[in-house]
Amino acid sequence: MTKALNSILTILLITLLSFTYCTGYSALEDKRIIEEYKRYLRTTNHALVARKLVHQADWAAVGSISTNEKITDFPMVNIISVDDSGENGESTGHIRFLLTDLDFTGPDWQHNNKVTFLFTDDQNLNCKKRGEDPMEPTCSRTILSGKVKQLDKNAAEYNDLVATFAKRHPAAKKWIKAHSFYLCELEIENIFVLDFYGGPHDIPVADYYKAKLKL
Amino acid sequence: MTKALNSILTILLITLLSFTYCTGYSALEDKRIIEEYKRYLRTTNHALVARKLVHQADWAAVGSISTNEKITDFPMVNIISVDDSGENGESTGHIRFLLTDLDFTGPDWQHNNKVTFLFTDDQNLNCKKRGEDPMEPTCSRTILSGKVKQLDKNAAEYNDLVATFAKRHPAAKKWIKAHSFYLCELEIENIFVLDFYGGPHDIPVADYYKAKLKL
Repeated sequence: MTKALNSILTILLITLLSFTYCTGYSALEDKRIIEEYKRYLRTTNHALVARKLVHQADWAAVGSISTNEKITDFPMVNIISVDDSGENGESTGHIRFLLTDLDFTGPDWQHNNKVTFLFTDDQNLNCKKRGEDPMEPTCSRTILSGKVKQLDKNAAEYNDLVATFAKRHPAAKKWIKAHSFYLCELEIENIFVLDFYGGPHDIPVADYYKAKLKL
Repeated sequence: MTKALNSILTILLITLLSFTYCTGYSALEDKRIIEEYKRYLRTTNHALVARKLVHQADWAAVGSISTNEKITDFPMVNIISVDDSGENGESTGHIRFLLTDLDFTGPDWQHNNKVTFLFTDDQNLNCKKRGEDPMEPTCSRTILSGKVKQLDKNAAEYNDLVATFAKRHPAAKKWIKAHSFYLCELEIENIFVLDFYGGPHDIPVADYYKAKLKL
């Protein structure tokens, strides 16, 4: 469906450009957009766009299938603090986060381990600053789906990973001590990236991890 | 479950306060937090908190049950531009948005009409500015679940509602013309608000609409 969606949206883009031509935009403007689109298709590394959006984010909007009695089987969307940094703050692509069974997401993933993380460039107001509507395709976003993997508290590296997470999220030290929070990682199964007209791109997980993000 | 969750979290808050007492926080600091918590319980209008979060937001993270072949039955989370403004920019609480069947959310709601909208105070970086972690309960959020109601394009008020929406989202004029976007409203069935320690509050929908938001 994604390929079909891409084709449809590409056709729509062309239609849109023809349409704008008929409704007052200049032919010069059309040419500029078409050139920009060609350049975009030629040069954009969508895996890198995903990695950038993930690394810059302090949180994700996380979807789960709700087990809450008020909205059973509804999609739940919660705000979850995230970090993909390695020991020295570098981007690893590995999305880590702390969950507790006292919040919504904790019981949900244990009942049905299907989750989706949304990252948008407007979380940092980057689109707003550029005067772009947050829903415009040029306000880039990535949508990563997969499973929650609870990390082993007894593993040698567990405390180091928590300490690394707490560099970006100092409040996590308090959560770990006082509540029953546990560190998790997203086992990514599917990645969508939308960063321009023409529809979403489906990025192989291997390409995502392979991408080199220079900061 | 929500009441039980609240009770558990209230007990946890007390435990946390006892815990902090044993680990170096001053008794004075504890007293301050307890006083603040009592004041919060006495004075906070959670319905108003929800209305404020909704009205200030340009977009919501919208959950649906995915029909996309890559992630069928996963929760999808998409970014959707929203506005609850009336004709003169006032808050109405009625969350309106434009959807297209070419995007993820459009086909999803038509297959299974259960959606959830997340609004967080950190979308505007308000929590970050206060030095609060986005996942701290004091970084307020509201989670509204319900059904998508597609508004009737032939109704007398449809074009006025689109025009009102386009005041906050000028790009919407382009979407309406060039793509098959349609204006919708969220039929709210459940509202959670989390704005302090002690767990989420479940707000009656009538209280939400009744709340008077002064700007």
